[in-house]
Amino acid sequence: MRKVAVLGQGHVGATVAHIIVDHGYADQLVLFDARKEKLQAEVLDLHDAASLLDHHVEVSAGTFEDMADADVIISAIGRIDLIEPGGDRFTELKANLPSAQEIGAELKRVGFKGILIAITNPVDVITSVYQEATGLPVERVMGTGTYLDTARMKRVLGEAIGLDPRSIQGYVLGEHGDSQFVAWSTVKALGQSAQTLAQTYHLDLPALEQAARQGGFDVFNGKRYTNVAIAHAAVSLMNLVLSNAQQEAIVSHFDAELNSYISTPAVISAQGASDVVDLQLNEREKTLLAQSAQTIAEKAAINQ
Amino acid sequence: MRKVAVLGQGHVGATVAHIIVDHGYADQLVLFDARKEKLQAEVLDLHDAASLLDHHVEVSAGTFEDMADADVIISAIGRIDLIEPGGDRFTELKANLPSAQEIGAELKRVGFKGILIAITNPVDVITSVYQEATGLPVERVMGTGTYLDTARMKRVLGEAIGLDPRSIQGYVLGEHGDSQFVAWSTVKALGQSAQTLAQTYHLDLPALEQAARQGGFDVFNGKRYTNVAIAHAAVSLMNLVLSNAQQEAIVSHFDAELNSYISTPAVISAQGASDVVDLQLNEREKTLLAQSAQTIAEKAAINQ
Amino acid sequence: MRKVAVLGQGHVGATVAHIIVDHGYADQLVLFDARKEKLQAEVLDLHDAASLLDHHVEVSAGTFEDMADADVIISAIGRIDLIEPGGDRFTELKANLPSAQEIGAELKRVGFKGILIAITNPVDVITSVYQEATGLPVERVMGTGTYLDTARMKRVLGEAIGLDPRSIQGYVLGEHGDSQFVAWSTVKALGQSAQTLAQTYHLDLPALEQAARQGGFDVFNGKRYTNVAIAHAAVSLMNLVLSNAQQEAIVSHFDAELNSYISTPAVISAQGASDVVDLQLNEREKTLLAQSAQTIAEKAAINQ
Amino acid sequence: MRKVAVLGQGHVGATVAHIIVDHGYADQLVLFDARKEKLQAEVLDLHDAASLLDHHVEVSAGTFEDMADADVIISAIGRIDLIEPGGDRFTELKANLPSAQEIGAELKRVGFKGILIAITNPVDVITSVYQEATGLPVERVMGTGTYLDTARMKRVLGEAIGLDPRSIQGYVLGEHGDSQFVAWSTVKALGQSAQTLAQTYHLDLPALEQAARQGGFDVFNGKRYTNVAIAHAAVSLMNLVLSNAQQEAIVSHFDAELNSYISTPAVISAQGASDVVDLQLNEREKTLLAQSAQTIAEKAAINQ
Repeated sequence: MRKVAVLGQGHVGATVAHIIVDHGYADQLVLFDARKEKLQAEVLDLHDAASLLDHHVEVSAGTFEDMADADVIISAIGRIDLIEPGGDRFTELKANLPSAQEIGAELKRVGFKGILIAITNPVDVITSVYQEATGLPVERVMGTGTYLDTARMKRVLGEAIGLDPRSIQGYVLGEHGDSQFVAWSTVKALGQSAQTLAQTYHLDLPALEQAARQGGFDVFNGKRYTNVAIAHAAVSLMNLVLSNAQQEAIVSHFDAELNSYISTPAVISAQGASDVVDLQLNEREKTLLAQSAQTIAEKAAINQ
Repeated sequence: MRKVAVLGQGHVGATVAHIIVDHGYADQLVLFDARKEKLQAEVLDLHDAASLLDHHVEVSAGTFEDMADADVIISAIGRIDLIEPGGDRFTELKANLPSAQEIGAELKRVGFKGILIAITNPVDVITSVYQEATGLPVERVMGTGTYLDTARMKRVLGEAIGLDPRSIQGYVLGEHGDSQFVAWSTVKALGQSAQTLAQTYHLDLPALEQAARQGGFDVFNGKRYTNVAIAHAAVSLMNLVLSNAQQEAIVSHFDAELNSYISTPAVISAQGASDVVDLQLNEREKTLLAQSAQTIAEKAAINQ
Repeated sequence: MRKVAVLGQGHVGATVAHIIVDHGYADQLVLFDARKEKLQAEVLDLHDAASLLDHHVEVSAGTFEDMADADVIISAIGRIDLIEPGGDRFTELKANLPSAQEIGAELKRVGFKGILIAITNPVDVITSVYQEATGLPVERVMGTGTYLDTARMKRVLGEAIGLDPRSIQGYVLGEHGDSQFVAWSTVKALGQSAQTLAQTYHLDLPALEQAARQGGFDVFNGKRYTNVAIAHAAVSLMNLVLSNAQQEAIVSHFDAELNSYISTPAVISAQGASDVVDLQLNEREKTLLAQSAQTIAEKAAINQ
Repeated sequence: MRKVAVLGQGHVGATVAHIIVDHGYADQLVLFDARKEKLQAEVLDLHDAASLLDHHVEVSAGTFEDMADADVIISAIGRIDLIEPGGDRFTELKANLPSAQEIGAELKRVGFKGILIAITNPVDVITSVYQEATGLPVERVMGTGTYLDTARMKRVLGEAIGLDPRSIQGYVLGEHGDSQFVAWSTVKALGQSAQTLAQTYHLDLPALEQAARQGGFDVFNGKRYTNVAIAHAAVSLMNLVLSNAQQEAIVSHFDAELNSYISTPAVISAQGASDVVDLQLNEREKTLLAQSAQTIAEKAAINQ
């Protein structure tokens, strides 16, 4: 039996729950939100859908006690309503940090030993907060990080060369924030490196990078939140954990050398995120990654 | 190639689009909304998700011309923001009716010959408006009607007897509104009729019926909209059309005898909704159905 | 984590394994067959497919020890090669009975406490043998029984009235063998009873019943085995168990009154098959069901 | 509406049909086999499964006329029974070549304009035969080629380094036969090139290559056919065509420079296989690819 809990039933958390129920990815799904009426409405909407779906998932509003034996908990709490257009994800930190500390302490209290996946922003800091508060081993706590930024880079590059983004390899590394960067040395499509592609297709790589970085705000400005893509990023990570997949994915996980939760690819299994991928970055990329870790640390310090 | 268009990218239309893309139910998906920024944001969020999904769907913001050769168009336009808690779906009619007339005329202009599925409320009236405005044969225009109310009845009854709603048979008939009713003569579960179930499990059938009728407002009151279950209802109908399924489903379709779009089960195929189901209702249910048709007609007349 | 084992990698067992891996219905899948080369080939074929599929399933050839903590074990062992065209499923009993006894004893030895689903024929007898040999509670052992015969009845009736079989309700009851019968009082389609349908569509119900009963042999005669539909029947039951679905399904489960494993609908959950469905059969059907139970008992006695 | 035809209902063709029906990948599925009883049995087994599945697919035994408007035709005809263990796929050529010529001529006669995907061995030669016989543009005819060999290479390498094969990039190029080779310059996993992986994990790359090449025969020797993985390879290509995916895949397609159908990656869309991938092979790999093309040509000449 697969058991999952989703914390927060805003747009992202509700979409995560919907995807899980729609595909039958879990057998038991516990939802949580401090707003009780909203929470009950989301549970009820999913219950109403049951007879229209192909899978059976037991969905309930639950307590932390109900989450104690979950295989995976996804944190989608957040206060995106605090962000102004063009703003920074760190705006949310002041609101989300105490919530994460409190929730983490509750999960520790009930003895949660599963895997925690954070979507909550600023995700690199919040993931770190969750790890400290729960006392879980570092590999058992991870964040969606630049999973979605990477997807955006693939979308932007794919549009430029007429290729489905699934056929593009490569990663956006670092902070899920402004200091992120495309590691062009990892990017490959149509058999060619980013540099060769740039020549063949007359690409402006810095402009593509900026378009990918800006993508989240384009969505945010139009609908005041983003939910579909980020929810699928979290669900993808969840499925890799639930099935013990040993698959590589970009994820915010603890980097001992940089002493930070930060996004580079890891191998995901039922044990969490394993740090066995060696990207062989060039010197510029190594510097950018270190600078991004520094940025995360500084922003965390300022806000705490 | 399967081509679908979704009109309206509010909560319901966006969820319909998400489900289609997530499952690869269509090869081409055209989205439309009068709010251009919102529309672009929804398209972009789906594009961002592409590399995270298992199927390829070409998603675009489109014009009516782009919908001319669609197999199915789903109308999810609406002004649910106009409804007060405890209100009536007819509140939306004043806003939605001219929109449906205008859209229907546009679809006629571009020569749309596919199937139109309306979610827009008050759905029985709006479906009728779409049929007139498009000039499509009555069987090629349908509404979600009491599909979701039926799902709610199954949910409520299932909870009462400890059974998954998928294992409950039966229908809520009539208006997708207050004059709807559970046709208890059609309800069966665990091998037993509703009356026998009521005795075996000490059920209060009128209370269950009211709980099902009230279900939508319970969700609405908690989240200010309903989207998941209603979106799946529409997608279910869409899939029956796309695959020419010849399956029975509850749907708002034209009843020649009652001279109204109203919900009773029909057989759904690529040709639309075929009126071959003969429920053999009892006299009380026949009367309630006729009264419900009358209610639809009166409300439509008042508001026009 | 969902763990499933499949015993026997003939055409049926291999197809069951394929479906599970294709859909990611389990996280761990243990396969077993006495023919070691055949077993390894099936495991390897599934491993080769891994990078082409959407889900991660850990597939391995295993021992009984590996199955001790499985949630569900599916028995697909069999000697269909012993059956002559037009023959009887009891032909296989002499070969399959000692295998089931031996396997059941092994599962008892390793402490298997999950749910056992038997496809192995003659399935009603073999299911009983498994229950005795494993010492599991009767509700935790079940057989596919007339699940497939019921599907065939729906197919035959659906073809006759131009309706998808999913829209037909009703059951084939009794032995998965010649003494089975369509319980016409449970059959309903297009809102009508079987008798009304027979009049409306000029149906020859006894001929339809014979066509359904004969269906398996039509497939067998053409390909020397049947695998697709029977494998899906077993997988459907498995999924109801894994997700604790509380759904009604036709299944060979223990009937205390008839003192036999025999097929009538039950409610399937993680606890197995619960005998709470009361079909309210007519007298003729009750007699046929009792006679079918008698047939199962006699054939079992002769062959033991 | 998506329409697909599958030629040949041996183990591979039947498994292709099963996957399509199980997932609802097509709306209409036409099956063909010269053995009429076998064909009817496969159709019937799929029909029997219908009420157990989540999708509606109209499955029928058909004529070439029925295939005229198919979007995709998959050729799974073959005489694998002619192959001795350890044998060569060219053994089948004498039997399969006239069949392909005849079928191709029939498809030309009925005016088939869709995409033809050949699984039939020796697949590089047969794909060429189909293209000539149908008169279709070269990009609209393709073969599964080394798609499965590539999957096997990923499986073998994944086992060696403890990684899911989906996380391994790279290709087996050339003939779907003995002259195939792993293009190690295209292989990447855990951020590392094949050479770096070989050092880090003490890999014997030539042994891995031989294990991948040998994989098909390991499966064949154990079950006398291979079906699951090869069927999924064909279905994957089919889905890329049906959804106009613009995705990169390894496929046997026409290489103008080598004047041969041979496997290198191409971009697959509704228009077929587009030759826009430039692998930037090293000199050794270019030579091996040319030699493999030469091998295909020689074997084809000998057998014709």
